[in-house]
Formats: sequence, C-alpha cells, structure tokens
Amino acid sequence: MKIRHVNAGVFTAVEDLELTLTPPAEGFYWIDADAEDLALLQPAFALHDLAVEDCLTEEEQRPKIEIYDNHYFIVVNSIRFDDEEIFLRALSVFLGRHYIITVTKQKISELRAIKPILWEQEVNEPDRFLYLLIDLVVDNYFLVGDRIEDKIEKLEEDILVHTKRSHLNEIIGLRSEILWLKKMLGPQKEVINILNKKDLRLIDDQLQKYFSDIYENAVKISENFDTFRELMGNLREAYQSSIANRANEIMRVFTAITTIFIPLTLITGIYGMNFDNMPELHGRYSYFIVIGIMITLGFGMFYIFRKKDWI
Amino acid sequence: MKIRHVNAGVFTAVEDLELTLTPPAEGFYWIDADAEDLALLQPAFALHDLAVEDCLTEEEQRPKIEIYDNHYFIVVNSIRFDDEEIFLRALSVFLGRHYIITVTKQKISELRAIKPILWEQEVNEPDRFLYLLIDLVVDNYFLVGDRIEDKIEKLEEDILVHTKRSHLNEIIGLRSEILWLKKMLGPQKEVINILNKKDLRLIDDQLQKYFSDIYENAVKISENFDTFRELMGNLREAYQSSIANRANEIMRVFTAITTIFIPLTLITGIYGMNFDNMPELHGRYSYFIVIGIMITLGFGMFYIFRKKDWI
Amino acid sequence: MKIRHVNAGVFTAVEDLELTLTPPAEGFYWIDADAEDLALLQPAFALHDLAVEDCLTEEEQRPKIEIYDNHYFIVVNSIRFDDEEIFLRALSVFLGRHYIITVTKQKISELRAIKPILWEQEVNEPDRFLYLLIDLVVDNYFLVGDRIEDKIEKLEEDILVHTKRSHLNEIIGLRSEILWLKKMLGPQKEVINILNKKDLRLIDDQLQKYFSDIYENAVKISENFDTFRELMGNLREAYQSSIANRANEIMRVFTAITTIFIPLTLITGIYGMNFDNMPELHGRYSYFIVIGIMITLGFGMFYIFRKKDWI
Amino acid sequence: MKIRHVNAGVFTAVEDLELTLTPPAEGFYWIDADAEDLALLQPAFALHDLAVEDCLTEEEQRPKIEIYDNHYFIVVNSIRFDDEEIFLRALSVFLGRHYIITVTKQKISELRAIKPILWEQEVNEPDRFLYLLIDLVVDNYFLVGDRIEDKIEKLEEDILVHTKRSHLNEIIGLRSEILWLKKMLGPQKEVINILNKKDLRLIDDQLQKYFSDIYENAVKISENFDTFRELMGNLREAYQSSIANRANEIMRVFTAITTIFIPLTLITGIYGMNFDNMPELHGRYSYFIVIGIMITLGFGMFYIFRKKDWI
Amino acid sequence: MKIRHVNAGVFTAVEDLELTLTPPAEGFYWIDADAEDLALLQPAFALHDLAVEDCLTEEEQRPKIEIYDNHYFIVVNSIRFDDEEIFLRALSVFLGRHYIITVTKQKISELRAIKPILWEQEVNEPDRFLYLLIDLVVDNYFLVGDRIEDKIEKLEEDILVHTKRSHLNEIIGLRSEILWLKKMLGPQKEVINILNKKDLRLIDDQLQKYFSDIYENAVKISENFDTFRELMGNLREAYQSSIANRANEIMRVFTAITTIFIPLTLITGIYGMNFDNMPELHGRYSYFIVIGIMITLGFGMFYIFRKKDWI
Repeated sequence: MKIRHVNAGVFTAVEDLELTLTPPAEGFYWIDADAEDLALLQPAFALHDLAVEDCLTEEEQRPKIEIYDNHYFIVVNSIRFDDEEIFLRALSVFLGRHYIITVTKQKISELRAIKPILWEQEVNEPDRFLYLLIDLVVDNYFLVGDRIEDKIEKLEEDILVHTKRSHLNEIIGLRSEILWLKKMLGPQKEVINILNKKDLRLIDDQLQKYFSDIYENAVKISENFDTFRELMGNLREAYQSSIANRANEIMRVFTAITTIFIPLTLITGIYGMNFDNMPELHGRYSYFIVIGIMITLGFGMFYIFRKKDWI
Repeated sequence: MKIRHVNAGVFTAVEDLELTLTPPAEGFYWIDADAEDLALLQPAFALHDLAVEDCLTEEEQRPKIEIYDNHYFIVVNSIRFDDEEIFLRALSVFLGRHYIITVTKQKISELRAIKPILWEQEVNEPDRFLYLLIDLVVDNYFLVGDRIEDKIEKLEEDILVHTKRSHLNEIIGLRSEILWLKKMLGPQKEVINILNKKDLRLIDDQLQKYFSDIYENAVKISENFDTFRELMGNLREAYQSSIANRANEIMRVFTAITTIFIPLTLITGIYGMNFDNMPELHGRYSYFIVIGIMITLGFGMFYIFRKKDWI
Repeated sequence: MKIRHVNAGVFTAVEDLELTLTPPAEGFYWIDADAEDLALLQPAFALHDLAVEDCLTEEEQRPKIEIYDNHYFIVVNSIRFDDEEIFLRALSVFLGRHYIITVTKQKISELRAIKPILWEQEVNEPDRFLYLLIDLVVDNYFLVGDRIEDKIEKLEEDILVHTKRSHLNEIIGLRSEILWLKKMLGPQKEVINILNKKDLRLIDDQLQKYFSDIYENAVKISENFDTFRELMGNLREAYQSSIANRANEIMRVFTAITTIFIPLTLITGIYGMNFDNMPELHGRYSYFIVIGIMITLGFGMFYIFRKKDWI
Repeated sequence: MKIRHVNAGVFTAVEDLELTLTPPAEGFYWIDADAEDLALLQPAFALHDLAVEDCLTEEEQRPKIEIYDNHYFIVVNSIRFDDEEIFLRALSVFLGRHYIITVTKQKISELRAIKPILWEQEVNEPDRFLYLLIDLVVDNYFLVGDRIEDKIEKLEEDILVHTKRSHLNEIIGLRSEILWLKKMLGPQKEVINILNKKDLRLIDDQLQKYFSDIYENAVKISENFDTFRELMGNLREAYQSSIANRANEIMRVFTAITTIFIPLTLITGIYGMNFDNMPELHGRYSYFIVIGIMITLGFGMFYIFRKKDWI
Repeated sequence: MKIRHVNAGVFTAVEDLELTLTPPAEGFYWIDADAEDLALLQPAFALHDLAVEDCLTEEEQRPKIEIYDNHYFIVVNSIRFDDEEIFLRALSVFLGRHYIITVTKQKISELRAIKPILWEQEVNEPDRFLYLLIDLVVDNYFLVGDRIEDKIEKLEEDILVHTKRSHLNEIIGLRSEILWLKKMLGPQKEVINILNKKDLRLIDDQLQKYFSDIYENAVKISENFDTFRELMGNLREAYQSSIANRANEIMRVFTAITTIFIPLTLITGIYGMNFDNMPELHGRYSYFIVIGIMITLGFGMFYIFRKKDWI
C-alpha cells in the first residue's frame, strides 16, 4: 500500500494511514492498495461489504458502479497486450470526498502513466483523478479494436489463399474472444453514462462535460463490436464458400477419373460381346492393339482435361 | 387487494375501500388488485367496461393505452425469465386523479421493486408512480435483448461446429420467439409516445421529459429487433451453407467409392473380352494375380485419397 | 352529394348548392361528392379541367398536388384491407378558400372517421380539415407496413420449413405488390412536402408545422420500403439456397444408388472374366452364393448409408 | 444566337450584340448561343480561352466550375430520356456581372422550361437565373434514379423467373451505365458546393441558401448511387445463384440417366458371368424375359423419379 | 535547402540561416529542407532528437504529431500517382512561432502548388501555411478513393465476364493495398483532430474552424475505407461464386460424357450375356448393326444435349 498526498499535481508520500481519514487542508489522498490492504482500509473508510467482496473475488469482473452513502465504488477493466493475446485486469476504485483508493491485483500500466498527467494538469481533486484514470483506460480500448480487426483481416486473407479446416476453429476462437471482450468492455459505457448523467454528489458538475467526452469514446468502441460482427459474418461466409469450392475441386478430380475410365470400359464391353461374327476377335494382335488404343485414349483424355485446366 | 395511502413515499395501509373514493389531503391511493377485485373496483371508480374486460381476458395483451374521461387505462407487459424461457405478464394500470390501480394475474417483480424507489424519491403523485413503474418495466427489456442475442450467438456457433437438421427447428423457434416479442413489446413504444407527446390532463407537464427518456429507451429496444433480424439472416445463411457443405461431403464419399471401383471394373472388362489371342488368360495363376492386382489397386487408391484428405 | 356547413366542428346539412358559392359568415362548406356530381360542381366552383379529368379517369391515380389560381387539387390514396389483399382508393380533394370538396368513387373509411375528430377539435377552416384528413390517410399506411412485413416473414418461414417451386411465384407476386405500393404511396411524401414547404396562399402558416409532422411519418413509411427491399433480398437468397439444397438432396439419392450398384457390377465383372483357371466358376452352388453375396452387400451398403443418415 | 433583355422576368428581344456589352439600366442580358456563336462572343466578353475550348470539344463533359476574373464558367449535364435510353447534353454557362451566356450543342428542354419561372418570380439578376437553371437540371436527375431502379427491378425479376446467360451482359451493361452516370453527374455536387460555400463575387449572398437546397438534392442523388451499387450486388448474386441452380438441374438430369442405367448394367453383368451352373441361361425365353425385366425396371425407375419430381 | 521570408504571401529568398533564428518584423520564414540539412537545422532551432530521427529513417512513416516545448513536429503522407500505382511520400513539418521547416526526401508536388495560394491569400503566419499545406495534402486523398473504387469496379467486371484463378491474387493484392493505405492515411484524422481540438499555443484560435473543415474531409476519407471493405466483400463473393459456377460447368461436361457412355455400355452388357437362346448373336451383320446403333445413339445424345445447351 502506497499512500500519497496529491496537491496541485504534486505528490507527497504519507506514512500514516490515520492521517488520510481527515480531509487535508488542500488536495486529496491517493491510496494505491492491493487486495490484502483492504482488511485495513475497510474499517477505516467504512467501505461497503459488497464492494470489498468484489475486490477480493478471483472471478473476472464486469465493469460497474455502486453508489454508497459516503463513497462510490467503480470497477473498470484495464487492457494489457502480450504478444497476440489480450488480457484484462480489473481496476477497482473507491472514490470519497477527500480520497481515492485504487485496488489492483496486478500492476496496471495506467496507474503509472497517470502521474505525469496529474502533475501537468495540477490536479487537486479526487473526482478529476478518477476522470483522468478512466480516460486513460478507455483510450487503450481503441487499440483492442485495431488488434481484433488485424486478426480478422489476416484470417480472411489466409482463408482466401488456402482454406484449411482448422480455420473454422480460429473463426470460432475469434468469435469467442470478441464476445468475451464485448461482455467485459461493453458495460463500461453504462458506467460512464451514470457518471455523466446522474446528479452525483461526489462528482463536480464541471467534470460532467469531460465524462461526456469519454462516453462518446466508449460509444464508438461499442460500435466497433457491430463492425466486428459484420466482419465475422464475412469471414464465416468466406470460409464456407472456400470449403464448398475446395470440396468441388476434389469432386472434380473424382469425376474426371470416372470420366476417363468409362469409355475404356465401353471398349472392353464391346469386345466382351458374344456375336458369332466379330472379325477383330480373331486377329493375332487384336488384343494388344485394343489395349494400346485404350491406353492411348486414356492418356489422351487425361492430357486434354489437363490442358483445359479441368483437373 | 391491498390498499395503501402513499404520501411522500411513505406507505400507510388502508382497510376501507370507501376512503379511497375521495382524494386524500396529501399523496394518493395505490390499490394493488387482482382480476377478481375488479368486481368491487369497477362500480366504485366507474372504470370503463372495455378496460375491465381487457383485464379479465385470458389472452395475451398487446401494450395499449386508452384515454377515458376520468381515468386512463394502460397495459404494459412485464418480463420474467425462467431458465432459458421468457415469460410475459400483463400489468394493467388505471390511473386516476388521486389514485392508481394496478391489476395483475400473477406476481410481478416490478411491483415489489418499486417500493424503495417511491420512498427514496418521496413520490407524492400517481402519475409519477406510473412513470417509475413503466421505467422499471422497460429497463428489464434490455435484458431480453441480451438473452436473445446470446441464444443467437450460441446457435450460430453450434451450427458452425456441427450442423444438424434439428438446428432448422431451433432457428424457426427462435424466429417465432423474436416475432412474438416484437409484437408484444413493440407497441410499448407507441404507448409511451402518447404519454410523452399528447397533452394529457392526468399527466403533469413536468413529467413529460421523463417519459421522453423512457421513450428513447423503448426506441433503442425496438432497434434491437432490427439487429435480431440481421442476425437471424446470418444464422439462416450459416445453416443453409453448412447443410450444403455437409451434403457435399457425403457426395464426396459416394463419388470416391465409385471412383475406386471404376478402374477395377475396367480390368474385369479387359479380361472379359473374347479375343482369341489373350496370353494372360491361360496362365495358371493369372486369375489370382489379377485379383491381387485389383485388391492392391483398390486399397492403393483408397490410401492415396485418404492421405490427400479427400475422403 | 352531401353538403354540410362546418362551424367549430358542428355540422349542419345544406340543401342548396348555391349557398356554398359565397363564403359563410363562420366556418366553411364541406361537399362530399362522387364522380357524377362533378358535372354540377365544376362550373359552380370553376374547377380546373385537368383536375376534373383526373377525378373521372378509371385508372389508378398516383398522389399529386396541383396549384390552381383559386383552388388546389390534391389526390391521395386511401388504403383498405380485405382479408390478405390491400386495395387503394383514390381520394381527390379540391381545397378552396371557404370550401373543401372531397371526390370519391367508393366509400372511404377516413371520411367517416374524420367527423368526431372535427367535432373534438372544433375545426373551423377547410385547410385544417385537409390536414386532419391526410393525417388519417397516412396513419393507415403504417398498417400496410406491418401487413407486408408479416407476409414476408410468413413466406420466409414457409421457405425454410419446406421449399416449393411455387414459392418463387409468391416471391415475385410479393415483389410486384411492394413495387406497386411504393409507386402509389411514395409520391405522397412529395405532396405533403409541397404543402409543408411552399408558401401557399390557401394554407395557414400555423398549419405548416402540423404538415411537417405528417411529412415525417410519410418519410418513415418510405423508409419501410428500403426495409422491404432488404427483406425481399433475404427471401430470394433463402429461396435460392433452399432450392439448391433440395437439388443436392436428390442428387445425393441418385449418387447413392449408383454407389451401391458399382461394387456389385465389379463382382459380375470378375466372374465374367475368361481366365482358364477360375476354380469358383465350377462349383455347383457358386452362382447362387455369389448372387447371395451381392444381395447381402447391396442391402448392407444401403443399411449403412441409411444409418449414417446419408440417404 | 438569341439575345434577350430580361427585366423582372419580362423578355425583350435584343438584336444588336453591342448593346449587351454595357450593363443595362435594369435587369440583365441572356444570350442563348450555340458553339459557333462563340467566335463572336469570345472577343466581345473576353471569355477565357480554356472555357471556350471546353464548349467546342466533341467529348463528353464532366460538370465543372472555373472562376475567372470577370466571369465564371460552369458546365452541367442536362438529362434527356429517349425510350429506355438516357442521354446527357452538356450545358455550358458563362456568368458575368450583367449577363449570362448559355451555350448548347443540342436543344435542352430546361432552357425552354425556365422562361415561365423567370416570369413568375420576376427574376432580375443573372445569378438567380443560374440558380433556377441548375435547380431545373438537378430536379430531372431524380427521374434518372427512378428509371435505373425500374431497370434493375425488372432485370432482377427476369432473372428470378427464367435466367439466361444473356442476362450477364445486361447486368454488365447496366453496371457500366450506372458508373457512367456516376462519373458524369457525381461532380455536379462539387460544383454546387463551390457555388454554395465559396465567397464568390458574382453570386449574391442571399442566393447561397438556395444553392444549399440544390446541394442537398445533389447529395441525395449521389446517395442513390450507393443504393444502386447495393441493388447491383443483389442482382449479381441473384444471377450467380440462378445460374448455379440451373446448372444443378442439368446435372440432376444427367445423374438420373446414369442412375437408371446402372442397375440394368448390373443385370447384364450377372448373366455375363461364366459360372458352370446358371440354370436361367438355358431357358428358351430367358433372354427375352430378362430384356423385358430390364425395360420394365428402367421405365419403372423413370416413372418413380418423375413422380417424385426428381427429374 | 531553400530559405524564404514570406510576408503577406510575398516570397524573398534568404541566404543566411542565422537570420531566421530571430523573428522577422513581419511575416515568417519557410525553410524547405531535405534530410541532410537537418544536421544544420537541429542545433539552430533546438529541434527535438526523436523528431529528427523520424525524419531520417528509411521506413514508412505513419502520420503523427508531437508537441514539444517550442515547436511542433508533424508528419503527413503526401500521395503521388504513377500509372496505376499509388506512392506515399512522407512530409515532415516543424512548426515554430516564426518559422516553418518542411523536410522531404523526394519532391512533393504540394510544396509547389502551395505557392500561388500563399500569394492569393496573403498568408502571413506559419500556422496558416501549415493549414493550407495539410488541406492540399488531404484534398489529394479523395483521388485515391476514386482510383481504388475504379480498380475494384474493373476487377469485379473482369470477374463477372470471365473468372480466372489469377483474379484471386488481384483481389488479395488490392486488399493489401487498401489495408496499407488505411494504415498510412487513417491516423491523419487523429493528427488533424489534435490540431483542431487541443488548445495549442502555436495555432491561432481563428484557424481552428478551418482545421475542423479538413477534419471533416479526413473523416469522409476514412469512411471511404468502410465502403472499400464492403466492395471487397462483394468482390470476394463474386469471385467465389464464379469459381463455383465455373467448377460446375466442368463437372457438367464430365457428367455428360459419363451419361453418354452408360447406355452404350448397357448394350455391350446385353450382348455379353451368356443365354443359350439369343437370336441376334448369330446374324451375320448383327455385330456391325449393334456397333452402328451404338454410334448413332452416342452422337444422338451428344446432339440433343448440345441443342439443349446442356454441355
């Protein structure tokens, strides 16, 4: 747990938790805690039981906001990229009149990135801190959109160039990833909407127009998911068409083989007939001539089909 | 029948129906009735015959509003989820100057959920009660959208992974469910629009802007149905393509079998010819050698096709 | 021909056509005429020749508005439902300074429905009468949208469940109906737009904002036709895919039959070979054994294919 | 070349070109010229070389506007319908402070249609003349949209009812026509936008809002081209699906023929086997019985397939 | 390196770099540099290291803006067409209070085209110069849209008329080109947005509304990419359908060949049967008659199929 007194963007480390319980003359306290610290913080700041429970759970958290009497509890999901993979890390925030408590289980880059911004903008209030933090978190979401779009584009090109059955699994995997992200990020919009619209005691009225800026961004992001759905539809179609065309090609080869053998079979049929008078049957080399003709005919047809690019 | 006097969100139970016939000094009366109570309520409040008839019918009710001289009659459909199933329960409301009568056949959760809200907002007028009630009802509709979308997504994935003929029934069932919901929930929008736009005597002008908020939500919900239609189109396409591809696979197996047997048949044809001079025919083991060649050739082709992933 | 003096929504029957030629002290005259009455009305009100001609024609009328010196001529199409069928009935209106003449060939329900509305709103001017009449007419158009959408949905379900060739005719019939409605109802929008925008002498400026309300409705209706086009595209696709899949099924049966017979043919080929040494040929029951094997094999394959749901 | 002095919409023929070189006391001069007259007009009004060159070229002209020091040069394409065909006729306009010169190679109906409008609106300035002329030209474009849409709808119906290979040429022809129209009419929007937005010396500020009305129309027309693209996509899809289904039908007939002959071939195979003990072979009428059975079987299968509507 | 003093759009060549380090009495300095000149310019103007590094890199540059203390660094991509090919050339700009430095590796036509505009508009400030330069650059982007659309349309027509396998490569090539352009041009929008929205010291507030004009254009261009995606989807579908139809045609020929030979094979089967009593076998010319019948039958079927346009 790190406690800092923030005044006009200037940080002062605070050792004693007791100090933070009373409002400072100027600025506010920022307590950067992990899950274990909550045992200490809960009684001190009278944090709500349900909120603390949410911070401690091992499950994935969907974004939410809870309005309690003397503090608000907000959960947002921060995004982290690791190679191709997208990870979500829940960031829980308790916003009070003179303090802000951030609770995280793993390091969240936005908490580091926010420091110079606080300094630059000479931030003095915890609600403004909250706004800047959510702004940073939501800005990263746009990167997700680009990643997903890149993945879809790449997969579509793969499918066009050479379809494999395993592409279906990739499509389904990508679909699940998109649905998961939609579930985990989508409600963010509602959280920001509440911060934006509702007449909240702990959020300064001046800040609301800023929140409406983030809200617009969140709406844009959620519109991305419509684009993804469309792209995934294209992908599915491209895959199914490719599979059908590939199946057709195989069928064509099979049918070509049959087509080459059928006339040969007819010839054998002809010389298998039992007519009394069939002069060819009695020639010394007839059999070999006919076999020769059949081989010529077979390879001839094969050659023609090949040349016409039919096989 | 439960009668309550509501004053600034505070409830007082009222025993005597007679009392509710005259306006109270402050607040209003809320009568929570079931269908049978209407026999008593109709003469007392001069409720319109057609409205009472609508309350008593066993049929599904589409949302509507009827403007009578001294009261309005509103029907909305409340949603309840039971496992995967969605149920609708009609909620009929008579709104008068100093009273509101809610008529239900089954328990409706919104009628329980509204009590703390009334208290919090110190509600004092029956029209405001109506607004809050419809707000609760409409808010639940958004959950329907998520459920339906989930069902569609799940079905699409099922179809992609392994298409079955029974999926067609599921698609058709889902379509009917969506159309039914559209029919039962869609007109809600019009009802709210009337409450929102028309110059109504019993609705306070201040409330209209709130109703326009619900109206926006109702419009969003009805836009969901456009999304569903698009999704169902995708689903149908995915199903038909999958069925076609599956049919292709079976055809491929059939054709492969034919393709393997055709060259063998040619060989039998060759040795069924009646040429005088066919030296192979007279070898002692010729027959067995040819049979061996045929078996080798057949399995050879099968092995090659398999290896090329053609069967 | 029925002549009425309308004053603040109150109707008084007028017997003498002469009276209507001069403006009344208050209110206006409404002349409800049929085509034959025009012989009398044209000279009396100096109605324009072309307009009267349009009223008398037997052809379908597209909506239009003509601005003449002392009167306007408006044609709108009223909708009537008869079972599944949609009928259009032209309603021609001559709007003058102190009179309105409605000309119809068949009964139009809107002309009956307008009476209580005139009374309720205490209508006193012919242009307001016109507005209310067009409002009624356009409101009915929304019902058309629902009907068409229902028909499309029903047809799509039919196609999905069991495609028949006759569905193509239904699709084409539905397309023609939609195109016909689009042609007959679409220009309504332009007519209302002219009433809405142009600075017209006979239309009170106050009324313009009401006309812009109807205009919005007319625009919504014409947007419906875009939806229909999309739905019809889906329908066509569903039909063509179903037909293709059905054709595939038949092909599969044909191919299955061939596939069952080909191995049997091979067996007959084998025992039709002319090798000197084929011991099986000389067994007493060989023939019957081979026939038995062939029957077993044939039914065996049939049974396997059936079990795998391939036929 | 016809020269007219226009004053409050009243036309006076002017014989002497010299007169038009100095501004009239009131109104303006309209010179209706053809390409040859430019030899006279160019030196008199100091028209720009490049502009005159554009008027004289035989090539199709894309809409454009050129701003010169003392006059503007505008090219728009007027539309004319001849049966099914759409023709474009370039209309070049030189707009000066006190004159407007219209240059055409062929008769353009808008130049006739504009006269009563000038009179009605008592037009007194050349820029207003220009506005009304472009308004007329652009209004006609809407008719193009209807024509093209009709053609597409008709072709789609043709394709659905009975697909022919020649339909592909019609689709490609229609595509080219749409692309050509898009190229020739699309830039009109930019021309009007310049007249609408730019601070032009020769265009009265009051007129700008009128130009913004035409601009809106031009935008609507260019949106039509998006609709056409979508419709053409549907058309292509309908055609390709139909062709595929037609190919399937032919395949089905071929496959049916094969399917009928295969079992008969099996029978001949059976009686072609060389078993010593095949009692049927020795019956007097066996051969004829077998041939009879084969014929019966063949026609029987044909009948069954036909009855099942498989062929 | 060319140094010019720009005052009210008038250019004066400046020889001495030293002069440019102090603000001129009026106007500003424009330094048109190439990469090597940066060695001199960096220390003189205290240009930021990272920015200079970006100018020197050989890699493609994505558009960006960097805000440094005393200058801004902006990279935009200028477009150049060479035949069918589209080339991008990075244009780096350093904007200071009294100077603007443009750094290019190759000639950029916009830097020539801007001179008359500066003169016409009597430009006096470096930020206005920047605005006009970016305006020119972005205006050219619209041409890209047309080119790409033309390419897509042409390819689609080619595919419809005669599909070749090589079209797939063209589709994939076009897709890559579009994705590349999207990556290289898309972020321009964000750059302009920052110039447009952020409260920047070096950009005059008056200019912001102009930047919002360019921003709108940039948004339109990025919407083009959505259109391209849709068009490419159509293209892919057209290609896959065409390939499928072409495969069907080949299959049809194969199947037709089989269908012609199967009945002939049946005939040989019949006369290969070993019945004792088969009178035809013993005719002198029977064999030749049967061969004749078979030839007639074969060509007859071929002729019929051809006539029915089945092959």
